[in-house]
Amino acid sequence: MTAYFDAIEQVRYEGPDSSNPLAFRHYDPQQVILGKTMAEHLRMAACYWHTFVWGGADVFGQGTFIRPWQQAGDEMELALLKADIAFEFFHKLNIPYYCFHDVDVFPEGRSLKEYLYRFAQMQDVLQRKQEETGVRLLWGTANCFSHRRYMAGAATNPDPEIFAYAASQVCAAMQATHALGGVNYVLWGGREGYETLLNTDLRQEREQLGRFMQMVVEHKHRIGFSGTLLIEPKPQEPTKHQYDYDSATVYGFLKQFGLEQEIKVNIEANHATLAGHSFQHEVATAISLGIFGSIDANRGDAQLGWDTDQFPNSVEENTLVMYEILKAGGFVNGGFNFDARVRRMSIDRYDLFHGHIGAMDVLALSLKRAAAMLEKDQLGDAVAQRYRGWSAPLGKQILQGEHSLSSLQQLVLDAGLDPKPVSGQQEYLENVVNRVLY
Amino acid sequence: MTAYFDAIEQVRYEGPDSSNPLAFRHYDPQQVILGKTMAEHLRMAACYWHTFVWGGADVFGQGTFIRPWQQAGDEMELALLKADIAFEFFHKLNIPYYCFHDVDVFPEGRSLKEYLYRFAQMQDVLQRKQEETGVRLLWGTANCFSHRRYMAGAATNPDPEIFAYAASQVCAAMQATHALGGVNYVLWGGREGYETLLNTDLRQEREQLGRFMQMVVEHKHRIGFSGTLLIEPKPQEPTKHQYDYDSATVYGFLKQFGLEQEIKVNIEANHATLAGHSFQHEVATAISLGIFGSIDANRGDAQLGWDTDQFPNSVEENTLVMYEILKAGGFVNGGFNFDARVRRMSIDRYDLFHGHIGAMDVLALSLKRAAAMLEKDQLGDAVAQRYRGWSAPLGKQILQGEHSLSSLQQLVLDAGLDPKPVSGQQEYLENVVNRVLY
Amino acid sequence: MTAYFDAIEQVRYEGPDSSNPLAFRHYDPQQVILGKTMAEHLRMAACYWHTFVWGGADVFGQGTFIRPWQQAGDEMELALLKADIAFEFFHKLNIPYYCFHDVDVFPEGRSLKEYLYRFAQMQDVLQRKQEETGVRLLWGTANCFSHRRYMAGAATNPDPEIFAYAASQVCAAMQATHALGGVNYVLWGGREGYETLLNTDLRQEREQLGRFMQMVVEHKHRIGFSGTLLIEPKPQEPTKHQYDYDSATVYGFLKQFGLEQEIKVNIEANHATLAGHSFQHEVATAISLGIFGSIDANRGDAQLGWDTDQFPNSVEENTLVMYEILKAGGFVNGGFNFDARVRRMSIDRYDLFHGHIGAMDVLALSLKRAAAMLEKDQLGDAVAQRYRGWSAPLGKQILQGEHSLSSLQQLVLDAGLDPKPVSGQQEYLENVVNRVLY
Amino acid sequence: MTAYFDAIEQVRYEGPDSSNPLAFRHYDPQQVILGKTMAEHLRMAACYWHTFVWGGADVFGQGTFIRPWQQAGDEMELALLKADIAFEFFHKLNIPYYCFHDVDVFPEGRSLKEYLYRFAQMQDVLQRKQEETGVRLLWGTANCFSHRRYMAGAATNPDPEIFAYAASQVCAAMQATHALGGVNYVLWGGREGYETLLNTDLRQEREQLGRFMQMVVEHKHRIGFSGTLLIEPKPQEPTKHQYDYDSATVYGFLKQFGLEQEIKVNIEANHATLAGHSFQHEVATAISLGIFGSIDANRGDAQLGWDTDQFPNSVEENTLVMYEILKAGGFVNGGFNFDARVRRMSIDRYDLFHGHIGAMDVLALSLKRAAAMLEKDQLGDAVAQRYRGWSAPLGKQILQGEHSLSSLQQLVLDAGLDPKPVSGQQEYLENVVNRVLY
Repeated sequence: MTAYFDAIEQVRYEGPDSSNPLAFRHYDPQQVILGKTMAEHLRMAACYWHTFVWGGADVFGQGTFIRPWQQAGDEMELALLKADIAFEFFHKLNIPYYCFHDVDVFPEGRSLKEYLYRFAQMQDVLQRKQEETGVRLLWGTANCFSHRRYMAGAATNPDPEIFAYAASQVCAAMQATHALGGVNYVLWGGREGYETLLNTDLRQEREQLGRFMQMVVEHKHRIGFSGTLLIEPKPQEPTKHQYDYDSATVYGFLKQFGLEQEIKVNIEANHATLAGHSFQHEVATAISLGIFGSIDANRGDAQLGWDTDQFPNSVEENTLVMYEILKAGGFVNGGFNFDARVRRMSIDRYDLFHGHIGAMDVLALSLKRAAAMLEKDQLGDAVAQRYRGWSAPLGKQILQGEHSLSSLQQLVLDAGLDPKPVSGQQEYLENVVNRVLY
Repeated sequence: MTAYFDAIEQVRYEGPDSSNPLAFRHYDPQQVILGKTMAEHLRMAACYWHTFVWGGADVFGQGTFIRPWQQAGDEMELALLKADIAFEFFHKLNIPYYCFHDVDVFPEGRSLKEYLYRFAQMQDVLQRKQEETGVRLLWGTANCFSHRRYMAGAATNPDPEIFAYAASQVCAAMQATHALGGVNYVLWGGREGYETLLNTDLRQEREQLGRFMQMVVEHKHRIGFSGTLLIEPKPQEPTKHQYDYDSATVYGFLKQFGLEQEIKVNIEANHATLAGHSFQHEVATAISLGIFGSIDANRGDAQLGWDTDQFPNSVEENTLVMYEILKAGGFVNGGFNFDARVRRMSIDRYDLFHGHIGAMDVLALSLKRAAAMLEKDQLGDAVAQRYRGWSAPLGKQILQGEHSLSSLQQLVLDAGLDPKPVSGQQEYLENVVNRVLY
Repeated sequence: MTAYFDAIEQVRYEGPDSSNPLAFRHYDPQQVILGKTMAEHLRMAACYWHTFVWGGADVFGQGTFIRPWQQAGDEMELALLKADIAFEFFHKLNIPYYCFHDVDVFPEGRSLKEYLYRFAQMQDVLQRKQEETGVRLLWGTANCFSHRRYMAGAATNPDPEIFAYAASQVCAAMQATHALGGVNYVLWGGREGYETLLNTDLRQEREQLGRFMQMVVEHKHRIGFSGTLLIEPKPQEPTKHQYDYDSATVYGFLKQFGLEQEIKVNIEANHATLAGHSFQHEVATAISLGIFGSIDANRGDAQLGWDTDQFPNSVEENTLVMYEILKAGGFVNGGFNFDARVRRMSIDRYDLFHGHIGAMDVLALSLKRAAAMLEKDQLGDAVAQRYRGWSAPLGKQILQGEHSLSSLQQLVLDAGLDPKPVSGQQEYLENVVNRVLY
Repeated sequence: MTAYFDAIEQVRYEGPDSSNPLAFRHYDPQQVILGKTMAEHLRMAACYWHTFVWGGADVFGQGTFIRPWQQAGDEMELALLKADIAFEFFHKLNIPYYCFHDVDVFPEGRSLKEYLYRFAQMQDVLQRKQEETGVRLLWGTANCFSHRRYMAGAATNPDPEIFAYAASQVCAAMQATHALGGVNYVLWGGREGYETLLNTDLRQEREQLGRFMQMVVEHKHRIGFSGTLLIEPKPQEPTKHQYDYDSATVYGFLKQFGLEQEIKVNIEANHATLAGHSFQHEVATAISLGIFGSIDANRGDAQLGWDTDQFPNSVEENTLVMYEILKAGGFVNGGFNFDARVRRMSIDRYDLFHGHIGAMDVLALSLKRAAAMLEKDQLGDAVAQRYRGWSAPLGKQILQGEHSLSSLQQLVLDAGLDPKPVSGQQEYLENVVNRVLY
């Protein structure tokens, strides 16, 4: 193994008082919280995409990073070098999982044939790396949005041959994910949307997307993949409007195509806020609809209208998210993938560690705080108390369908009902949360 | 009939060259466009709510209007005066429809009993007014959001007695709408949402809302109401998050409760933009999902984050909306209700006419432009051409379920497919639109 | 003194482990931090406006609170009752300051004469209350935005008589503030903006506003008021565009009218975010421009486009703000006024305590954290290190005007300069902050 | 000259009824409007940047265009080819002006020396091209934001050597602009802002920027450049916060450094909307502050939070902007530069023509409509009427400083003034505008 990050051996837990910036202060993988270890609760992953593919370019400027695997040279040799360094990083970071897009790992080549050949080669490499390091695959995915052929969509492309090409990639990426022991497979429809309604047939594109997802489900069962299929909602960017806008939108889509038992959502914090929701809202909504799957952990910037993909750093925000997840029983196959990148100015190689370490500690601390919230669940008690009328006779009768509008009108008249509002106690409950946080 | 607007007799069509600010320049009710009169196409309505209830107050200031029916006095006498002047206005404006909330028309009184008594009285008054003026009812609705009892929701209230109270109002308002010949019944869940997740049970509230809507559908059939039931989506305000966020969200809700054949959406321009969508997007999306019902015509302000409810004044925007509606076959029961109010500074009583006349002309001109677009449908042709591959063998096979991911992969390999993108022609199509507009 | 809040005596500091929701866990007024007591650092104030004037109404609903002083009755008797209960609240809350608008304290009556008479009466009442309780006046202000006469602005009104009326109110409110020992005087131009450019003369209105502010400065000196004059920036709401958009905009205005030494800004967190800035940005910007004065402490909702005026509850956000203020030397006359209101659903009278207590604890804890940051100022050191080149010869020469574009070009050529970027270390510095917070 | 666009000779005016998509329907360069030709009024320019530099890549995808000058090859030969095709385009488009950044025209090379050598070469080429085609230079500028050395700013960089490097480029670009007869020089501070306040010294960076701009002004006078210096405001992107946020912010900056007579603003439509303003607002504000210079014509997307740089296509929006400009006397040195790019999917080379032709027609038609508005200036008359009180004695006295707060209070008392509001007539005035538009 090369030693690109030669100044560091492996990040360790040193406790809250440590002043070592390259140690964990809160993330202690083996610490048991509510009956499971932190590692089992959080199932954290680093991603190839932001950390090993992005070169620091943005819309107005060239790349700022100078990484050995991003220099000129033989494409496949550089792919191997990148894999070496990626797994060196995952190992030294002490993170249990990683994630990848097919073409993060190797350049796709000049044909599907070459793509498949290279993918097979690199699958072997990844397999060996996983074994050497013990790092496991949280999910795989196919990039059907960067190549120019996908500029007008993959599954929703006006050209069925492009649909077929995308299907080929997803087929390959699912098989690789399965072979590598991945526990989820993700679909992000980066170009499944429109730029202008003037050239778009919404109903047609939705039919295409529905059929595509059905094929993905069929393929999963055919190959015996037991992981979870995940759609990742995003409202816009790069498209003007993406069909998988948010969790509630994805739910309607799944219901239309009979997929609500088969596909769940991978919620990204920054996608939630771009959609006009809080991160907690998206998680709570997906849970309430029965489609919560996994998390792309990051944060946006409340003042910016694009996906900044910053590392999560708010314990306040993530504790509430963690509380929702714990209440719902925790992850099944999902986990926290860091869909986050260091800033374009963070050009030192160890900035990659600072970004991830800070984020892992934020999630670990959020887990501890959320567990404390649950152990004496004042919020849960207040909510139960607030809705108690729905467990009493009138509430039950209504929900069981024993009332009509007119029977209720008659009931109000007969009983002379004049129900009075009671305080929602928002400020009190906010203080309850802060009492656990600080 | 009183003559509050004594300086005006009735607004007439005078043609594009008229400089009379109190005449229509484009709205000629009897002009035939694509086989129907303008009046039949547009089915425009004025609303009680903004025009006869709002007094010009905002969050930072008191009312600015000084209307005779908003002075101190006997409540029911003032309600009668308000009805007189409202119908004077509808008649003089030459608008075929109106809309109302129950308590727009009369103050609800101290009990449900008094509410029902007053409603019955005023139903007679409205009936007589409709007959006298020929103005018809586009839709009725119940206000289950202004009274303090509804501060935490009506159907989604934690207290089932408040649910019952709301059911009583909706029951009454549906019956009145039916009796008055209303062609739609609208449900806007102004408080059906949450202020903070800390005190909210999302799953519970959704169950309540689902049951409520089922009861509304059952009641419709029981009383033989043949109009359309409409949910009006809005993303937030007054709540932090409203469950009927946008058309796609409402679609998922309807599917969950088996209501997608029974309820359609009433789309408001300003609610669309608050939800992060264009007005055209919401209309096109609802049409593509088969749930398009009616329109609340107004406009927001692209720089402001709340519902400004201004009168529509963009022919550019409304022509595209009209084009979507015409392509879909036009309204069935729906129409364009002006959910719009004059600005707080527009304190002259004739400002009410300027607002509506300008808006009616904008919609009329948009209709003419959209009809011209359709007559030589360059957009439609371009779209058909763009997706033509889906009518060819490969496209058909895919949508008919004759392919799997792996069969498509095999097909790409065998045929050596390397599909190339073609121009989306956005700029050209935008010029096509402008060529019709100007 | 009445006992409206009869269940509570006075809120006390009980330490972090207290589970008493009506005690302070962090705010210990006499605790010394960096050489001053917490009370001296924070200078917290409660406001009449949100707590004793607002009745719980919003744009879509009636008031929800039922307060004794908001019932029908004799106006001035109710004003006295309100003052009694307000000072009972300030005292029991253990908050050292309060703030008011003129007409928060009494209804303005039917003429300026009556207004002045009532103001004089209530000034005596406030004076006595201040003496009885020891509560002091952080600032006074005049409400020149709620009355319908101000619908088109006060100082920027198209009618100079309305300008004169506003001048009369400000004259009176300044004199009262002075007499009551107020340490600042605030000007919020709620209607000093426009609704539409179509009827607006921007240059004219700016001239009017400039002259008005000059008159305020002249009046301050004439009456010997030694407090600070403060403009409160806000970008919009209720107007479409408010001239005092943000700190940078106010700075340009002050420079144009020669007022930058005379007037400072009162920064509100929620106004900052509505303007597209972070709260910290606005504070840091005002400090860097030399116009920082005071704070209206609250928070907005990142998903909502209007002023929600919620109580501050983020220690993460407020610690950074506190750090900026401490670095700049702390407040001179300013302080933290809670321009915040309990939610419309928080109808229990003690919710007012929960809102304020939580917020006071958040600021107290933020102060402690910020002081800890400063004591070992890793951020400050990193910044100093980053800009050190500007203390070296080349940097100094440039800033002292010893270089031109061409001399610098020559220098680069001669020295063959090819300067390299260095890491901005954002993630590392974010971790440094979290290390202090948790 | 090559013939890359070989299917087209030159775009001509064919009148409103033309159905030729490659002809002007409204832009007739020689048509006289209010005493000047359309060409003289509009002074339109195409830009190198979007049309000849951008390759169709976005944050999530590779380039989609396949242009001959963007292939592998000798850098300077490709630069010559690019210049050939660029001027072929400008000529065939029949547009009188163009604009460029230094490194749009040639790759900067490995040192400042090489940069200057290449710049000199290409200046000759541009000079010859200008002479051959008659196309003139609206403005030049230097790109001090794309190279990685500028990742933390140019003038505001923490490293004074990078400041010096930027000065070198601006020095060269100003001289080239001057030599090529450019009539303006633009400064867009793409990286003059911050990513995080944690590593930023706002006061220091502002001082640097102030000194830099003073040096630019000094250099202008030294070389005898008689054109206008222009700062282009933008609120954010690529930075989190850019110091030249909007016109009002730039005004404050100019005042601080004594530059308000020397530098004006180049307003971009899409930057205006990103800053939370309407395009008309930014133009009207700059005019009212005396700093209006030029326009970057484009449009954003009201639903997207980044710079989409689409071609202007709204006559409704641009007519109001044109009205402001005409009222202010029109451009001096400025003009309308199309800072706009075809969509990433518009990969056909002639899409470049469709984008520009549509936009040029939109501005031409907007000019005609605005001229019609001015000829019978109902808006201007209404505004004059609205503010007439400020030309009467009381208004004049106030603005001339003859009143104080207390003299005005006395006046209100003595005269018993109780001024009444009058209607702002917004809806009426909106209809007046629509009457001219349609």
